[in-house]
Amino acid sequence: MVAVTGRDNPRTYRAAGVDLDLAADAVARIADRARRTFGQPDGGGDAMSPAAGIGHFGGLFHLPGDPVRTLVASADGVGTKLKLAFVLGGEAHAGIGRDLVNHCVNDILALGARPLFFLDYVAMGTLDAGTLDAVVGGMIDACQANGLVLLGGETAEMPGMYAPGEYDLAGFIVGEVPGGRAIDGSAIEAGDVLVGLPSEGLHTNGYSLARQIIGLDGDREHDRAILAAPLPGGDGLSLGAALMAPHRSYAPEIRSLLDRGWIRGMAHVTGGGLPGNVPRMLPPGLNATFESHRWDAGPLCDYLVTAGELAPGEAARTFNMGIGFVVAVPAGVESDILAALPTARRIGRVVSTDDRTQTAIGGDPQW
Amino acid sequence: MVAVTGRDNPRTYRAAGVDLDLAADAVARIADRARRTFGQPDGGGDAMSPAAGIGHFGGLFHLPGDPVRTLVASADGVGTKLKLAFVLGGEAHAGIGRDLVNHCVNDILALGARPLFFLDYVAMGTLDAGTLDAVVGGMIDACQANGLVLLGGETAEMPGMYAPGEYDLAGFIVGEVPGGRAIDGSAIEAGDVLVGLPSEGLHTNGYSLARQIIGLDGDREHDRAILAAPLPGGDGLSLGAALMAPHRSYAPEIRSLLDRGWIRGMAHVTGGGLPGNVPRMLPPGLNATFESHRWDAGPLCDYLVTAGELAPGEAARTFNMGIGFVVAVPAGVESDILAALPTARRIGRVVSTDDRTQTAIGGDPQW
Repeated sequence: MVAVTGRDNPRTYRAAGVDLDLAADAVARIADRARRTFGQPDGGGDAMSPAAGIGHFGGLFHLPGDPVRTLVASADGVGTKLKLAFVLGGEAHAGIGRDLVNHCVNDILALGARPLFFLDYVAMGTLDAGTLDAVVGGMIDACQANGLVLLGGETAEMPGMYAPGEYDLAGFIVGEVPGGRAIDGSAIEAGDVLVGLPSEGLHTNGYSLARQIIGLDGDREHDRAILAAPLPGGDGLSLGAALMAPHRSYAPEIRSLLDRGWIRGMAHVTGGGLPGNVPRMLPPGLNATFESHRWDAGPLCDYLVTAGELAPGEAARTFNMGIGFVVAVPAGVESDILAALPTARRIGRVVSTDDRTQTAIGGDPQW
Repeated sequence: MVAVTGRDNPRTYRAAGVDLDLAADAVARIADRARRTFGQPDGGGDAMSPAAGIGHFGGLFHLPGDPVRTLVASADGVGTKLKLAFVLGGEAHAGIGRDLVNHCVNDILALGARPLFFLDYVAMGTLDAGTLDAVVGGMIDACQANGLVLLGGETAEMPGMYAPGEYDLAGFIVGEVPGGRAIDGSAIEAGDVLVGLPSEGLHTNGYSLARQIIGLDGDREHDRAILAAPLPGGDGLSLGAALMAPHRSYAPEIRSLLDRGWIRGMAHVTGGGLPGNVPRMLPPGLNATFESHRWDAGPLCDYLVTAGELAPGEAARTFNMGIGFVVAVPAGVESDILAALPTARRIGRVVSTDDRTQTAIGGDPQW
């Protein structure tokens, strides 16, 4: 992949090798075909009907034979943040393990689910016990912190599939929504306020473009030197440390809001950024406007946007721009929430729209 | 990895890049650490206690707040059978998708579970919509055949992580054991008979060694020519077709036996072969002897053992040797089972042993 910059060839996530439009098409096609498996009788003759399928942050599954209990499941990876862990080694691998678990926890949290258990898949070319122990150790730490059982996993040794020292991993989480009531955004109304919780760095998205912007080239010594340099505006934090900042779990803060009944919908800001994820919680006929002057993207996003000469819309679709989790709440509780969670910020509001293709998202001049 | 043959350097799975002993050590270490997450309170205050954790074919999870209902979950991949699909293309990708689902179905079937839902993780360097559609199409076909809902998944585009045209994938399955009663092998007694159900080819294990034996070198044209050649003794079947034979689901046959209450324990023959997997169902103090004259390994295993000059124990730990699924039954029902399932074979029996390190498995001269 050749890095291209300048007015004629603006730097984009697509040019860095990640085509979100193609991915969205593929996911839509898969979701359509996967519906064939919904509601079919299982071997025991019960009808199964997922309340929500592929496309939301998790899949809802009504337990057969029970009128209430509903499971929520999600699968995820950590993307090419892995490539930075390969360069940095050591504690970075444990961080990757924690990132994976927290990413999964946040995905089902976005439907109001409490986590139950987690399974992992780790694939390496040649089994490296030290790296594996670090990754799994990180997963176990995060499972404990989230009250989650690490129930099993698969460790695959696949010669010729991964470069020496490299690996991929995937996580799978199952949780349950209390009382069978998922918070799926259907209660959201025009006029509701969008409250954002801050991210720490990029979490697990946008790394293919970030790696290109900072000039990593795959040579370990060269890449280590780049990552050891200070992040401009980062108070002495190295670029590597800023990029490896943890994908944190929002469960403690969000549960406190859920307990008060304030939340009408939630979005976990992952691939696609705010404009790609906030609409996933919105009912038909509604859209979101973002008030980007109300919060800071943070020094890492600021640096990447500047150094990469990114168009605002491209940056917003690639990076989380400082916001990791979004809740939609009635306007009347905005001040209560901001008082309860000092780091939270109002980031926008829900608006009515007759045509979802003419949205303030993505095309908004603020991006 | 250099292929080595001859008496001084016997060809082994380890030399082909897969170290089962190292993997077993790693899994044991992970299981030990993962127990820290068992029984911890979740956010709601319920105690959770997996009945069986990492190490069995699936993890058992008692649903909090219900005295009976028990879920079973498992994570799996398909190993380097993928490398053959990369060479053969087309329908081979759909076969990989079906293999993944069936592998997962068999894993939880080994505990007596009915499948509920499935999620996938597919990672590519550059998103190839045609390949992705084929893989997912295969998964959907197999989900439908097994009465299983494809509830969600993650498609990851990871530039620089996978070679062009290559991908990895992982599957996650959740099922439930009827009445909360898992068949975990605890009822197995010395004197019980081991009945094997035939595999079709290698299923999804041993491909790193098989690829080395048949001389694949990564050059697509060269490799296609090798795979197009007829399998010796294969009635005109090509080597490629024999190697891509599906990892089949044993659910239909096994359910008919479960309904009659005949089964005391089950083993899915995956990595580690018969000697690596049959002991996973056995209670302490028991072991297995195999009567390998009672069944045929089939033309593919026979060819690989001969062409690879494999020691019998090495072959048995690497390939399934013609048996894909094993059930332990009381001796009194052996003839009934063999009459009900014409392709089934008695393959050995359960014996008592005072010292499990001195076993008939692996060290048995029959291997």
